[in-house]
Amino acid sequence: MTRYKLTIAYDCTGLVGWQRQKEDISVQGCIEEAIFRYSGERPNVQCAGRTDAGVHAFGQVAHVDIERPDDIYTIGKAINFHLRHITPKSAAISIIKVEQVADDFHARFDAKERFYEYRILSRPSPPTIERHYMWHLYQPLDIDAMQKGANHLLGQHDFTSFRAAECQSNNPVKTLNNIDVSRESCYITIRCSALSFLHHQVRNIVGTLSLVGIGKWQPEDVKTALEAKDRKQAGPTAPAHGLYFVKVEY
Amino acid sequence: MTRYKLTIAYDCTGLVGWQRQKEDISVQGCIEEAIFRYSGERPNVQCAGRTDAGVHAFGQVAHVDIERPDDIYTIGKAINFHLRHITPKSAAISIIKVEQVADDFHARFDAKERFYEYRILSRPSPPTIERHYMWHLYQPLDIDAMQKGANHLLGQHDFTSFRAAECQSNNPVKTLNNIDVSRESCYITIRCSALSFLHHQVRNIVGTLSLVGIGKWQPEDVKTALEAKDRKQAGPTAPAHGLYFVKVEY
Repeated sequence: MTRYKLTIAYDCTGLVGWQRQKEDISVQGCIEEAIFRYSGERPNVQCAGRTDAGVHAFGQVAHVDIERPDDIYTIGKAINFHLRHITPKSAAISIIKVEQVADDFHARFDAKERFYEYRILSRPSPPTIERHYMWHLYQPLDIDAMQKGANHLLGQHDFTSFRAAECQSNNPVKTLNNIDVSRESCYITIRCSALSFLHHQVRNIVGTLSLVGIGKWQPEDVKTALEAKDRKQAGPTAPAHGLYFVKVEY
Repeated sequence: MTRYKLTIAYDCTGLVGWQRQKEDISVQGCIEEAIFRYSGERPNVQCAGRTDAGVHAFGQVAHVDIERPDDIYTIGKAINFHLRHITPKSAAISIIKVEQVADDFHARFDAKERFYEYRILSRPSPPTIERHYMWHLYQPLDIDAMQKGANHLLGQHDFTSFRAAECQSNNPVKTLNNIDVSRESCYITIRCSALSFLHHQVRNIVGTLSLVGIGKWQPEDVKTALEAKDRKQAGPTAPAHGLYFVKVEY
């Protein structure tokens, strides 16, 4: 039995998200099925952060124990091969890297920092190649104001105002290490990192910053919303399909 | 009757390309149908460059005459509205801009420079969100060698070696104004511009440069292929779905 760390990318359009489900096609379910087809074992693949339906990943990380002895390149190729044959949707999942790790490595509990990116298309006309990969906003966005608003969220805070009702975390206090708003023509990217996030935290932050971007809110209103510790005082939840789980540091 | 210049973006995944066809769903056909639903007129929309099936656009340009009098914003919104209701595939087409132009403006004949971009994903593992939008190459690519090879194509040449058999142009001599190979992590972009291109010229150039990138060819072999004036002496045709028609200058 050897433990492996998997770095995983996926296009979650049409998938139900990371977590295995009985009926629907999940990232975890597809990878476990692909490993079963390769090794004959029924593995339990555990990830660093369970992403919701529609949320994409460039660098999700998971660990898994596999008995069948092979080198890491063979294992990666085999899983990718089977992913391309389970269903057309599982072909949207790709194992980027396989590494052998210590038997006690844990993708979730050993993570030191998680990095997310949120992409917005800001222009009056509808999206084309961006439509499953960015949030489309008709309005122009003031990214300097968005950055000013975002800066109020840096550091350790009670993020109750940015937490989904169904969030299972015991503690709403999180530390946002970084949040950066940038633009390239009509494409706006919000990058952020933390040890961990509450459920929907990034999407609720982005939804709130969008109100600042369109001028409906002042940057200081983000601080007021944060301090209210009340989900109703912050902005809407930005849609899943603009969100990317970029990488995890250990 | 007023003539309008339309700037158009599209995701050509699942469309048969620009040109109107009886059975299949084309960009031209969808835009003409959308204008008909808006104005009741049967327009003839003529573009700067007819793109093949699978080729995307950020800034295709076309002109069209419309009788129904409205301001440019209303016309743009109306066409985009109807594009979203013809078929699910036509929702992948977006009118970015509508401008009123002189009655003799011609999207094709007045164009001074056309800009294309070709996107490659270069990594061993399969693509995810990139799979309909980039050419996937397993091998690492030497972009300095690709740029050196590309430089042999700059300027005026007989591009017979890079011309599709079915090309309808009278003259294989074209002038390549610019060709630039750049990389950002595993994403490689080849940008080029010219007054006009032969059929498949960009894709044949990219296919040829890919041979240089993987080390199978030396940069000088591109010169040899060009001078041979023989399609069989150049590299393969890169797939359509990595190609983007970026903009037209008038």
